Amino acid sequence: MNLGKYLDNVREKSPLVHNITNYVTVNDVANALLACGASPIMADEPDDAVEITAICNGLNVNIGTLNSRTIESMFKAGKRASELGHVLLLDPVGAGASSLRTDTALNLLKQINFDVIRGNSSEIKTLVLGSGTTHGVDADKADSVNDDNLAFMIDFVKDFARSSHSIIALTGAIDLIADSSRCFVIRNGKPEMGRITGTGCQLSGIITAFIAANPDNKLEACAAAVCMMGLAGEIAFARLQDGEGNSTYRNKIIDAIYNMNSEILNKGATYEVI
Amino acid sequence: MNLGKYLDNVREKSPLVHNITNYVTVNDVANALLACGASPIMADEPDDAVEITAICNGLNVNIGTLNSRTIESMFKAGKRASELGHVLLLDPVGAGASSLRTDTALNLLKQINFDVIRGNSSEIKTLVLGSGTTHGVDADKADSVNDDNLAFMIDFVKDFARSSHSIIALTGAIDLIADSSRCFVIRNGKPEMGRITGTGCQLSGIITAFIAANPDNKLEACAAAVCMMGLAGEIAFARLQDGEGNSTYRNKIIDAIYNMNSEILNKGATYEVI
Amino acid sequence: MNLGKYLDNVREKSPLVHNITNYVTVNDVANALLACGASPIMADEPDDAVEITAICNGLNVNIGTLNSRTIESMFKAGKRASELGHVLLLDPVGAGASSLRTDTALNLLKQINFDVIRGNSSEIKTLVLGSGTTHGVDADKADSVNDDNLAFMIDFVKDFARSSHSIIALTGAIDLIADSSRCFVIRNGKPEMGRITGTGCQLSGIITAFIAANPDNKLEACAAAVCMMGLAGEIAFARLQDGEGNSTYRNKIIDAIYNMNSEILNKGATYEVI
Repeated sequence: MNLGKYLDNVREKSPLVHNITNYVTVNDVANALLACGASPIMADEPDDAVEITAICNGLNVNIGTLNSRTIESMFKAGKRASELGHVLLLDPVGAGASSLRTDTALNLLKQINFDVIRGNSSEIKTLVLGSGTTHGVDADKADSVNDDNLAFMIDFVKDFARSSHSIIALTGAIDLIADSSRCFVIRNGKPEMGRITGTGCQLSGIITAFIAANPDNKLEACAAAVCMMGLAGEIAFARLQDGEGNSTYRNKIIDAIYNMNSEILNKGATYEVI
Repeated sequence: MNLGKYLDNVREKSPLVHNITNYVTVNDVANALLACGASPIMADEPDDAVEITAICNGLNVNIGTLNSRTIESMFKAGKRASELGHVLLLDPVGAGASSLRTDTALNLLKQINFDVIRGNSSEIKTLVLGSGTTHGVDADKADSVNDDNLAFMIDFVKDFARSSHSIIALTGAIDLIADSSRCFVIRNGKPEMGRITGTGCQLSGIITAFIAANPDNKLEACAAAVCMMGLAGEIAFARLQDGEGNSTYRNKIIDAIYNMNSEILNKGATYEVI
Repeated sequence: MNLGKYLDNVREKSPLVHNITNYVTVNDVANALLACGASPIMADEPDDAVEITAICNGLNVNIGTLNSRTIESMFKAGKRASELGHVLLLDPVGAGASSLRTDTALNLLKQINFDVIRGNSSEIKTLVLGSGTTHGVDADKADSVNDDNLAFMIDFVKDFARSSHSIIALTGAIDLIADSSRCFVIRNGKPEMGRITGTGCQLSGIITAFIAANPDNKLEACAAAVCMMGLAGEIAFARLQDGEGNSTYRNKIIDAIYNMNSEILNKGATYEVI
């Protein structure tokens, strides 16, 4: 499959992505979007968010440091983006770790149809079950996808895709990107990416850009974004030198996205479709 | 012209700059201010902002992620800084992209006299016309300064400087820094700086510091800051190695500011005064 | 003394640290916590903060960009963390620079017992005297600890530790880490760390993690964290190359924390106990 062309389209169309996101990783989200060829903008005052989202191509909603003002913006901008047929992505950071996070994510899903829901295994499980026990913002090990539970987890995300009418992007050591009938099982990436804050947040922004630039192939575009992020993690890891750690790794991953092209992506993408 | 001495004065006086700015690029603004020898402080709760601004030498107002609380702080701290004769800069991020941004910028200009207004061509045009069509936070190509429209744009910024009683810093591929009678046309910088989030925000902080340290030569100090930022972009670009991208470029630009001195600045500044 | 084992315990137990902190340096705080083996989470909407703090092992309260919403969260989450016996740290950023900062810090100390108060000399002095004249977020030179006033300052922090029932971590060129009877005088670190925003904020997060992982040796664990941060600054400084400045230095410090181990820490820690 030519996943590289979905990246080419991002670079060619340069979609404008509105991010209502947390203040921990927002700078990396902006630079990651620029690295892949998209343009970021952030607005989270309700009136401003509604107007800004209207001039964008996609909306990335991330509840990582939600508050009453930004929650109102998520709902209002989400509904506006939905009316306009824009790409919508939900990143339910910490769903399962507090009732405000769980409830906000579930209510957003009830009122707005997201094209993609991207989270770790604990967050996705929380959304399916209606409650959860997420350990902070990281997935519980008990919830993770591995070769033993792979067939079960593929059915799980396909079922959730069917009931939610969204693409499910469950990311971790193994990434599962599914609609109701097909699931990309992606094995790009490095475990050390978990020692950097925000690789998941960056990916959510990037997926929004990829789908905005490829509206007719949403599942493939989403999988291409996930492969690219993991592959950037591999390339950056290979470029680490003695004495370097997670802060430099962060920079080198964004650099690797900046230097990614369709050829590198097609050659390095490691996945099967089930 | 000895622009380097304006940098020397920043390093000698170490002005304290209060920034009411967006949360996307705030960390880079702080490190860029430290790199050039100034001290940053951030406060955006209205009561706190008014008190903090009083102990500072300049106030940098950036509307990049404005909300009702920070807007109130911008007006209150702006008025307080104005009463105290402090340097005041407005960075109208996204003016023209939403009515809240356009209106906030225009109302700030009505109620407070800013020493400098720094923005891209679309933002500046919006402020002059009272409305605009800014594409997100980046300038529309149709609005950009080039050699064909240069004479017209120089008159345009001089006129706006006259009517606003502010120095206009319109930055882009060619930077125009003007008061009502003189315009610095600056050709430092690299187009790749546009692939990093926040170089404009950093520059706004730095200009505030430069003018705070050089109150008797505001136009020259502003031009020196703009030359220095562009030159840092050139130096950092020359230091980029294979495989490096926008994230490392961001770090190397701030590093280049850190290592800048008056000799390098005087030698590398590329400008004419018209 | 085997300070290294306190780091080993952080890496083994991976404490979850809730940070109510400023948006200037929050990303670096998160990556520094990940670098030392802990897990960060941020929540500052009052209801969310109370729930999130309950699933954590420690709470790091930093007033660097406080507002009415986050202040409410500091008090509510602080009381909840206190009820649950979690580690509590206060970083009174800018206490003395505005009445809101001074009053918030003093009221937090009245209502909540913090395990550690970490600040620069001006901030700590402000808390003892009830008012101050902090120059922005940096310490006044007049307040700094040096070899001439060392004996006096050691008594000063021990006295404050006694009256506040907290460990006092007064950090600067010389760091003093004291309870009512013992004071670690630490001489790790580099003056250039002051040219980076956020090394103090990072340290506050890290101390919270160290104490959460070593509840039976709070003073030693706090001293180990401070030695480690300073030593990381030394190691990173030695790794700086020509042309590099404060932005790369920031990354290399976090990298050095990432690569720190008990052997390096024990060998490089420079302190005496008085």
